[in-house]
Amino acid sequence: MAGPSKEHTDVIDAARVDLPVGIFDSGVGGLTVLRALRETLPQENYLYLGDTARVPYGTRSPETVRRYARQASRLLFERGIKALVVACNTASAAAITALREDHPDTLVEGVIEPGARAALDATRTGRIAVIATEGTVQGGAYPRTVNALRDGVSVEQRACSLLVALAEEGWIDGPVVAGALERYFDGLFEADGADVLLLGCTHFPVLSDAIRATVPSHVQLVDSAATTAAVVARDLAARKLLRANGHGEVHYLVTDNVARFERTAARFLGAAPGHARIELVDLNEGRETERQS
Amino acid sequence: MAGPSKEHTDVIDAARVDLPVGIFDSGVGGLTVLRALRETLPQENYLYLGDTARVPYGTRSPETVRRYARQASRLLFERGIKALVVACNTASAAAITALREDHPDTLVEGVIEPGARAALDATRTGRIAVIATEGTVQGGAYPRTVNALRDGVSVEQRACSLLVALAEEGWIDGPVVAGALERYFDGLFEADGADVLLLGCTHFPVLSDAIRATVPSHVQLVDSAATTAAVVARDLAARKLLRANGHGEVHYLVTDNVARFERTAARFLGAAPGHARIELVDLNEGRETERQS
Repeated sequence: MAGPSKEHTDVIDAARVDLPVGIFDSGVGGLTVLRALRETLPQENYLYLGDTARVPYGTRSPETVRRYARQASRLLFERGIKALVVACNTASAAAITALREDHPDTLVEGVIEPGARAALDATRTGRIAVIATEGTVQGGAYPRTVNALRDGVSVEQRACSLLVALAEEGWIDGPVVAGALERYFDGLFEADGADVLLLGCTHFPVLSDAIRATVPSHVQLVDSAATTAAVVARDLAARKLLRANGHGEVHYLVTDNVARFERTAARFLGAAPGHARIELVDLNEGRETERQS
Repeated sequence: MAGPSKEHTDVIDAARVDLPVGIFDSGVGGLTVLRALRETLPQENYLYLGDTARVPYGTRSPETVRRYARQASRLLFERGIKALVVACNTASAAAITALREDHPDTLVEGVIEPGARAALDATRTGRIAVIATEGTVQGGAYPRTVNALRDGVSVEQRACSLLVALAEEGWIDGPVVAGALERYFDGLFEADGADVLLLGCTHFPVLSDAIRATVPSHVQLVDSAATTAAVVARDLAARKLLRANGHGEVHYLVTDNVARFERTAARFLGAAPGHARIELVDLNEGRETERQS
């Protein structure tokens, strides 16, 4: 049997270019990455999935996070995407290898390696501090990735689970946030300490003003949003999958509580997502008959 | 066909007496209720299920909470229990009616009505303040239950989602907790305000010292743990299902992260649960092959 004709392949590729970029996060934190992607690639369409029924991932075991990430990715691929961005540090750390194995022909990008590269670009002392969720810290993905990219760089990590809850609650300034940051950062920036603080959770950029006010002035804050967007742009271009022009749309999928997603999303996105574009989906294979309308 | 003989029925009832009391919570908060139950009924066996893979419930939609509660209850009944205590305010509010319909022949007790009764017993002014999760507050179960029990009592509610994260993180005192409480309680206890503060989430009793230090001295704190235990004792006695003597055991089931449960449980329970008694279970019907060992 003959393979597909050149013409047929071109039609398929042309259709593929217009497919959205899939973005997956445990909830709203990944919207900081979506925002950076839209700034870098405004012509693209995006399909964002927030697993709001099971947020937060940061305190779950890696096996559970991997199972959740696979379920989420499967749904996005069923809907049709041309690339997958895992916009959640915990899921990137636990599942990126599994997801690349599941989808070998598609660009699958996480936020860990772009974040590690951004931190390495910024440090002069070779000492990097990372704040992240408990799951990301315990998995050790950042020290491992940083040291695979460059020998002899020291990485000190702090698990800051409460910052996720603060960001979700919308408490991004004031004494509670300041107190939490002081407690988490205690002793982290000593005289010979780090000169870079990597925000190793996509929730944390919304707290960056408060973080900036707490860390010494010589410490540079970096996050993975902009770097991840740059990597995705480069890799889509290499695969000839960039849309040439137009203004892209975003469609949102959430696994629970559309109203709450809409309310909290604006803070992470810089603009309200628009209720009409938020769709409730179910990632559990074993579904009960009862469903949210 | 003849029914079971009297002797046979007696044997079944005797075996049933030794079955554990099932307790279900989204995570570790329900351990404050388990603690009260063990103080009231030390001779009983307990089977505690913490849905740690999907905690917190307080920000989920009622439909999702109901689905989770039904899955959890089904597992406990499959294991064999003589009564079910829903030791989670959010799940009690969303699912108690459904669970009683699912299991009409078994005692199914939640924490909402016992908590409401405790608050009514304590108030002299007829003004009750309730702090709870977002889900419990939005569902309005406390005002509804209080007013069904007694007319003309005012109930002011505050959603305090962050307190769950603080309790789970083990930050039960210090400036962050104090700041969060001050922010949540702002204006709640004015001159003619409430004289009772009902802790409408089973996580909150571990913060009671900090809460006590924040509210005016004339305000009495009540929680549903002790009242729920008293109700369960009364109803088990009425059904002739109380164990006469002995010292009961506790077996724990969790849906994720045994190590984290063990670490945080001690704070809620007043003693470490013991690793050997914690079992990892899966509530999803659609299971992936990969499982935590």
